[in-house]
Amino acid sequence: MNATIRTATEDDLPTIHDLVRELAIYEKAEHELVATLDDYRQDFKAGIFQCLVAEREKEVVGMCLYYITYSTWKGKMMYLEDFVVREQMRQQGIGQLLFDAFLAKAQQLNCRLAKWQVFDWNEPAIRFYEKNKATIEKGWWNGKIFFK
Amino acid sequence: MNATIRTATEDDLPTIHDLVRELAIYEKAEHELVATLDDYRQDFKAGIFQCLVAEREKEVVGMCLYYITYSTWKGKMMYLEDFVVREQMRQQGIGQLLFDAFLAKAQQLNCRLAKWQVFDWNEPAIRFYEKNKATIEKGWWNGKIFFK
Repeated sequence: MNATIRTATEDDLPTIHDLVRELAIYEKAEHELVATLDDYRQDFKAGIFQCLVAEREKEVVGMCLYYITYSTWKGKMMYLEDFVVREQMRQQGIGQLLFDAFLAKAQQLNCRLAKWQVFDWNEPAIRFYEKNKATIEKGWWNGKIFFK
Repeated sequence: MNATIRTATEDDLPTIHDLVRELAIYEKAEHELVATLDDYRQDFKAGIFQCLVAEREKEVVGMCLYYITYSTWKGKMMYLEDFVVREQMRQQGIGQLLFDAFLAKAQQLNCRLAKWQVFDWNEPAIRFYEKNKATIEKGWWNGKIFFK
């Protein structure tokens, strides 16, 4: 019983927003999710982000949300902003299918690398990335300024 | 003696590439800079990144290189990829002028936040960001997969 990976359309945005909430809860940060479904609709239509979804029995059970960015050291870079599989659907290889499709998309778009972030306490995720031979960098801090 | 901040054009790319090298040397990572000036030209023309430059006496002495990304928690986000002022021109307020112009540009583009990364050992930069009331997050690691 496998999953189908496909490009997300506008119709998937409510489910994508739900999955972001599920991940935010897992990351103990639900209160930080303030972007609304309407924000997602407007920004998706503007092409600011794209998404791959994993579907099983016509239901979306996971997603990778990404956009093109730039590394001044390496060149064109694909950034994986959010990556989540519904909790009850984990441990079945769906995350690997999604991640493989994300990496294939990055290569198809001629990116030199893919980048993402992971919480330092999120051991299952870190193990997954290490299994995928990712480089994990521990020496950078994030700076942020919020406007509203 | 102040600096003028303006949007970069394609003609500035050689200087921008030089400034990236200067920053990479400061960050002890010159060997990691493999993107060429030709890469910059192609990717700048494709609209993948933009840049503000600080000019003094018709010479570019600093820059902020950025692009629009997306926070699934907050919405539209401006990402500061590289920010550098030539070493001999520091401590004169040019960095602050550039950073202010970067934040103004982010707000003008209706971003909800600005984000960047800083090495955990780069105390002068961290002090600068703290002075600017930035939030510094220390709990995230970067994951990367390189394709070539």
